[in-house]
Amino acid sequence: METVSENRAFGGTQGVYKHKSEACGCDMTFAVYMPPQAKDGPVPVLWYLSGLTCTHENAMTKAGAQEYAAREGIALVFPDTSPRGENIANDDAYDLGQGAGFYVDATEEPWAPHYKMWTYITDELPKVLFRNFKLDEEAQGITGHSMGGHGALTIALTYPERFRSLSAFAPIANPTQSDWGRKQFTAYLGSDESRWRAHDASILMEEKGWHGPLLIDQGTNDQFLDLLKPEALAAAIAKRRQPAILRFQEGYDHSYFFMASFMEEHVAFHAEALYG
Amino acid sequence: METVSENRAFGGTQGVYKHKSEACGCDMTFAVYMPPQAKDGPVPVLWYLSGLTCTHENAMTKAGAQEYAAREGIALVFPDTSPRGENIANDDAYDLGQGAGFYVDATEEPWAPHYKMWTYITDELPKVLFRNFKLDEEAQGITGHSMGGHGALTIALTYPERFRSLSAFAPIANPTQSDWGRKQFTAYLGSDESRWRAHDASILMEEKGWHGPLLIDQGTNDQFLDLLKPEALAAAIAKRRQPAILRFQEGYDHSYFFMASFMEEHVAFHAEALYG
Repeated sequence: METVSENRAFGGTQGVYKHKSEACGCDMTFAVYMPPQAKDGPVPVLWYLSGLTCTHENAMTKAGAQEYAAREGIALVFPDTSPRGENIANDDAYDLGQGAGFYVDATEEPWAPHYKMWTYITDELPKVLFRNFKLDEEAQGITGHSMGGHGALTIALTYPERFRSLSAFAPIANPTQSDWGRKQFTAYLGSDESRWRAHDASILMEEKGWHGPLLIDQGTNDQFLDLLKPEALAAAIAKRRQPAILRFQEGYDHSYFFMASFMEEHVAFHAEALYG
Repeated sequence: METVSENRAFGGTQGVYKHKSEACGCDMTFAVYMPPQAKDGPVPVLWYLSGLTCTHENAMTKAGAQEYAAREGIALVFPDTSPRGENIANDDAYDLGQGAGFYVDATEEPWAPHYKMWTYITDELPKVLFRNFKLDEEAQGITGHSMGGHGALTIALTYPERFRSLSAFAPIANPTQSDWGRKQFTAYLGSDESRWRAHDASILMEEKGWHGPLLIDQGTNDQFLDLLKPEALAAAIAKRRQPAILRFQEGYDHSYFFMASFMEEHVAFHAEALYG
């Protein structure tokens, strides 16, 4: 693991690191914010998964989360959203290929050799993190925005024993029924739709539910509401009688301004569960 | 004036606007954050001037200032740092030409026709702002980062009656004695150094002082300390017996992580003066 940069931030350290990923077969970059409390020992960690077109960098610089993480004493992890490189398959569309890994393991060509974001996020990167940073593996929470909200929900619902708390900002909530999902699942996973179900938060929620605190924020002026389909996740939560806080925030859109506006509450929400 | 975008943020509105600038002879873009309190009438305003290479956009998305402005009930203005366009003079260096206006009115070719950032920021943009937004002209504060800290200091010291409060993050404090200054003043203002003095915060501070609250933050690990010359401004403040808070923040560098870490205190500092 190589240090790309480290900056003092809110009394802690915002770092960017690079490592050779076996899962993705390329160098991968990620960011970690370590709060001041880490000098006294391992701290809880909140995963933040980003959306379409993002790298590790967007949320690190635009979400304002470090302030709250420093106050609450939790670390933040910002992974990239896909493998990257000149020799890695890509597509001209913003919503397929590099920057659009969709948190699945591709089985179809030309994506299969490198697009293993599920394995990367759920298996390889955790090992790198817990080996190299003073993080408490028993105190993990996960969140994300848009495609990253989809990733956070599907990963937490698949590995519930690993996460104490779960939240999302404007998640892609029902990708098997959306153009943000069907196109990518067809490309990465093939046309057999039964293989898509493990990556649809609304289906997983209805089938399995969630054991811990759950918070979802969605802007009412989100320009992508038709693609996000929060109504499917709301229905699954209701059918399941799943304890959850689902908030439709008046006037907010899909931008980082929306996410930044509610980041403090999400970090506090996770901190309460992680220090509880 | 044309609206480029408006996003709900922290209960208020983050807008980006474009207008034809007479001073600069081109379209200029700026950002304004209006806090929720603006619905009840005019609010105080804090000017934020950005540093080298920045547009209106960097601080708007990376400084985290909207949260604090919403809490305190003050508006934020983020101007651009130079004229821009294909037909506008430029230079290959990052520290001259577009993105590097240095908050002066150029008198020398090829810069003179468009590089009028002093007039733009002190005369033209205020008129646009107070005509179009519910802002209290009697309650203005000013701050900035690096080159923008230089701009904030020199503008406030030149128009003290206009500003109630003044702060800066890692300002270029003594440009007449720095490679961040001498090169640009020679290009924009010519080689007669007597014409540079009006644009050097340390000289102005020693000669004129400042009537109100003054806060300056500087990171001790700033990679540009030799160019910023905080010691010159500190000496001027000391000689003048100028009331001021001058803080050297251990371990912080020149990045937005430094600035974001102390933005809350700067916004609160201005709010106290502007609502006082």
